Amino acid sequence: MKTFKTRLLALAVAPAAALATPAMAHNHAGAAAPTATYAPITVAEVEAAQQAWGQALVAIATEYDTKGHAAAKKVAEQVLDSAYGYGMGPVLFKPTLTVTPQTFRTSRDGALAYFVGGDKTYPNDSGFALKGWRTFKIDNAGVVVTGNSAISMGNVTIWDAKGNMTKVDKTWGYVRGGDGKLRIVLHHSSLPYSPK
Amino acid sequence: MKTFKTRLLALAVAPAAALATPAMAHNHAGAAAPTATYAPITVAEVEAAQQAWGQALVAIATEYDTKGHAAAKKVAEQVLDSAYGYGMGPVLFKPTLTVTPQTFRTSRDGALAYFVGGDKTYPNDSGFALKGWRTFKIDNAGVVVTGNSAISMGNVTIWDAKGNMTKVDKTWGYVRGGDGKLRIVLHHSSLPYSPK
Amino acid sequence: MKTFKTRLLALAVAPAAALATPAMAHNHAGAAAPTATYAPITVAEVEAAQQAWGQALVAIATEYDTKGHAAAKKVAEQVLDSAYGYGMGPVLFKPTLTVTPQTFRTSRDGALAYFVGGDKTYPNDSGFALKGWRTFKIDNAGVVVTGNSAISMGNVTIWDAKGNMTKVDKTWGYVRGGDGKLRIVLHHSSLPYSPK
Amino acid sequence: MKTFKTRLLALAVAPAAALATPAMAHNHAGAAAPTATYAPITVAEVEAAQQAWGQALVAIATEYDTKGHAAAKKVAEQVLDSAYGYGMGPVLFKPTLTVTPQTFRTSRDGALAYFVGGDKTYPNDSGFALKGWRTFKIDNAGVVVTGNSAISMGNVTIWDAKGNMTKVDKTWGYVRGGDGKLRIVLHHSSLPYSPK
Repeated sequence: MKTFKTRLLALAVAPAAALATPAMAHNHAGAAAPTATYAPITVAEVEAAQQAWGQALVAIATEYDTKGHAAAKKVAEQVLDSAYGYGMGPVLFKPTLTVTPQTFRTSRDGALAYFVGGDKTYPNDSGFALKGWRTFKIDNAGVVVTGNSAISMGNVTIWDAKGNMTKVDKTWGYVRGGDGKLRIVLHHSSLPYSPK
Repeated sequence: MKTFKTRLLALAVAPAAALATPAMAHNHAGAAAPTATYAPITVAEVEAAQQAWGQALVAIATEYDTKGHAAAKKVAEQVLDSAYGYGMGPVLFKPTLTVTPQTFRTSRDGALAYFVGGDKTYPNDSGFALKGWRTFKIDNAGVVVTGNSAISMGNVTIWDAKGNMTKVDKTWGYVRGGDGKLRIVLHHSSLPYSPK
Repeated sequence: MKTFKTRLLALAVAPAAALATPAMAHNHAGAAAPTATYAPITVAEVEAAQQAWGQALVAIATEYDTKGHAAAKKVAEQVLDSAYGYGMGPVLFKPTLTVTPQTFRTSRDGALAYFVGGDKTYPNDSGFALKGWRTFKIDNAGVVVTGNSAISMGNVTIWDAKGNMTKVDKTWGYVRGGDGKLRIVLHHSSLPYSPK
Repeated sequence: MKTFKTRLLALAVAPAAALATPAMAHNHAGAAAPTATYAPITVAEVEAAQQAWGQALVAIATEYDTKGHAAAKKVAEQVLDSAYGYGMGPVLFKPTLTVTPQTFRTSRDGALAYFVGGDKTYPNDSGFALKGWRTFKIDNAGVVVTGNSAISMGNVTIWDAKGNMTKVDKTWGYVRGGDGKLRIVLHHSSLPYSPK
């Protein structure tokens, strides 16, 4: 099956994006392996999804600072629909700063309220994504692929426009959406433990 | 987690369609568990997909006999798009009657040619689905669910309008599509071995 | 987990509608469906694994209070090997009280140190499982099965022998081990956020 | 996460065996990624399992010709336990030459009878693996990985000691066993269709 091996090597030196897709090999044709939305998730895809999350947070914050709340909310909704799996089913989401009895935000409404506030149903939410975030850094302690799902754990550090830093312990879980792109279906964020 | 147990029981007496989806349980709300497209495949879903396949074969044949080739081809294309996974990636398809070097039909074109013929690229195809099929019966030797995919093996028996019977050994493999419905990504059909 | 086993047997002879959980169905024989270690994870299995985790914590604490540190450590090692997936690969573990640079415990040694302390490599660990725990309660906000893996999120509340309570936000991820039993491969625990 | 990317590249040019394992990336240590038995199946693993199957067939036949039936049966049992998933649950097996009502061999006994014969329960089985096989060739039409399972379809050609050739259409399905190695849980083999 020489044709296939050659192709695998070609993929191996391709950029990360190209590593994400192939799960099919033909030996009858030299054509590129088609993308399969049921293919196993790759670590490269997880890393790309993480970068997309960080960029989305900055995008919401920047939109808010330059265009106001309505515009930021619109961006947040796009982020929820493209980066999270609320459209596929429930999402297990424990944001950093939520408190009981609204700690867990398994619905899209609850997630949106956390990110941009302004929802009377969630009176404690002031809009986490509106707090001037401009840069971010993701340090994975580990990424584990379990087939059609994947999980990552590590630190996410974010800085606002004034240089203030916030660092959280972060766990994400991902599945592949119907369009082939990863969706977050698990998100547990917490402030680091601080011994008294 | 009493609420959940109650709901599970409720689901247990629900019709097959309702059993296929739930993979989420809330204990904070009494609302029905949302559908998740990443939920494990159930045996009930596999059986439903098998029935849909048989009904589709009969539909194409009947359309051909009553409305002609163009109409039958249209139905066949709908079947390929709704029942098979060609839109998600490659499909491993070995139809009953194909011969080398066109035994395997991993592309949608090759599958369509097998079902309705009329494609110069596949000169040996006379249209398997056009041969008067009216009824079918599926006997599984086994159905195995492996998580986000499932496989079944057994006999499929079909009868044409004159009562002629054809019985094949059939293997199907399924994954869940982006719309939550099963798609066939593996199909190996063969005539029973006949010792000389 | 007797209830669950009983249910599985019941399913084996039940009509198609009830066949949602088992991973194998024969229609040629009335024999019970065999267990398959590659079958999708069920919510019932997740709940059983959660109960086992709580019981294990109590068991370690009780062993420590009645038989001393060496005995408790032995129990903790059994727990790590039976309830966690360290034997299968890495585990993404963020315990409740760890601090940087040893926040994440992806190795078995790091997990053992957290539970029973006494490891110079982890000088901040005093042994979380040794603190007199006697009872526990698990409230899931959600359980999501993604095929061969599953995730749960919610609150775990534990009480020590004096009735002191600790409540944490808890995420667990599970895969099926080679022996068919669930193993925790993800564990993110954090104290609830406390606004100043 | 530079360290990881470097490692991925290293893996990408490593021999096939090295490609099979990693599904974990640490960024805190330069140590090799540990093997995880829940990692997605790779095409390289599928190809290795296919080669192992061919070699096993030749091994059984050779053992029979040189050491007799008892020795060959012993090898066949080892093959069934190491290459097939009968120890994990049912296997969907439709051998090339079986006939109704024993077409499907979902039990280990039925598979063993097919390979080496000598079982009164399967009177039509003369032992397919005993027929002098010496060499083999596998041509995949496609290999599809669906996460924790994988499927392949194509031709397997085998030659006996006298140079006689047999070519079959072959579908295999694989899952990962508890020891991390692939096991065949689906096997559909059929003689090519021969138009009259």
